[in-house]
Amino acid sequence: MAEIICTVDVVLLTLLDGQLRVALLRRDHEPFPGVLALPGGYIHPDQDGDTQVAAARVLLEKTGIVSPYLEQLATFSGRGRDPRGWSLSICYYALVPTEVIRLAGHPEVVLVPADGIAGLPFDHQQIVAAALERVRNKSSYSSLPVYLCGDTFTLPQLQSVYEALLGEPVNKVSFRRKIEEFDILEPIEGAMETGKAHRPAQLYRLKSRYRNRLSLTDRGLGTG
Amino acid sequence: MAEIICTVDVVLLTLLDGQLRVALLRRDHEPFPGVLALPGGYIHPDQDGDTQVAAARVLLEKTGIVSPYLEQLATFSGRGRDPRGWSLSICYYALVPTEVIRLAGHPEVVLVPADGIAGLPFDHQQIVAAALERVRNKSSYSSLPVYLCGDTFTLPQLQSVYEALLGEPVNKVSFRRKIEEFDILEPIEGAMETGKAHRPAQLYRLKSRYRNRLSLTDRGLGTG
Repeated sequence: MAEIICTVDVVLLTLLDGQLRVALLRRDHEPFPGVLALPGGYIHPDQDGDTQVAAARVLLEKTGIVSPYLEQLATFSGRGRDPRGWSLSICYYALVPTEVIRLAGHPEVVLVPADGIAGLPFDHQQIVAAALERVRNKSSYSSLPVYLCGDTFTLPQLQSVYEALLGEPVNKVSFRRKIEEFDILEPIEGAMETGKAHRPAQLYRLKSRYRNRLSLTDRGLGTG
Repeated sequence: MAEIICTVDVVLLTLLDGQLRVALLRRDHEPFPGVLALPGGYIHPDQDGDTQVAAARVLLEKTGIVSPYLEQLATFSGRGRDPRGWSLSICYYALVPTEVIRLAGHPEVVLVPADGIAGLPFDHQQIVAAALERVRNKSSYSSLPVYLCGDTFTLPQLQSVYEALLGEPVNKVSFRRKIEEFDILEPIEGAMETGKAHRPAQLYRLKSRYRNRLSLTDRGLGTG
């Protein structure tokens, strides 16, 4: 039977200047050498326990980043997507604060605005579009956007992350009620954000047991 | 590099006696010969355009069924799930009226209650659980359950399909409003369901352009 090329690709998203960006790397080999593409690579059955482990390994090897949130998106496949032959890629998406990418310090990582992205090789454009749809959809009813914040943040900062993702203003009262329902944040005692024009705001962090989990609500977040 | 076993599996769901059931087949070869399992098979790169095509082919070959709704669920993978070696299965789920399974007439297809299913080989139990979660979640905000109905149905029949899936009563008024918003059904002129104790009810069918698509609502269906 003909061989199937088995790879993983990762859509690593971050928020920079209020804009969702995707981390790309210039490919260093055929096909498409020198072209910006998603970080990806072959599955190594001798090394990877499963495809999730493969995706985390590839992300670390190519970008130096460990993402606390890494979720399977979908599998893209077929005869036409890779000039080397029939291939499938199990795709994942990850969300990290830009700080994490900066600290990893890989000079090759380029952060490109995710909306309207073009010129990617293979079917990477479709993969990015699918990731954006998933992230926006999931943000409307879950705590997912928290993974785009740094270790500590104020509620107004978190609200603006939600608004940047959803692309519309969020009602402050229902936003705060939902965040309270999620019960995933804890105030950092005595820590206030100061030095701004506004009055000091309480700093929060994710409760430690939620660092890898999502909280869901069965209703929307009260956008509009 | 070690070879990866690439397969597809299909969770074919139907509603029988108000209960979600999954179609299983007795395996006719190693591993697990004689054991009931999901219909599945190898991807044939020489034959299948992509994994979706592979899943439709395998479903047809093993059960005689063409499902108008077939969606990718997730990819299950790893070293431990198949005794033959490192494997991955791109899993799909399909919804059909029981009538379609009966007409396909494959005597080997067994319809087993999906909730609390046990004794399946590989990680098929996990796959069925993931499919149930997806279908129930999606049913709460989309027209997905329509695919479990026959060609024609009344609104009370459709409502009872939603209720069987969601496992709770649905408010009739908000249910009808949502179905109207979906705008996917058309009344069949002059066709009424008669011969029941209740007064005759209008028969509906899916508009032809929606036979393969879902309609979504951004709010729930008003359960409870």
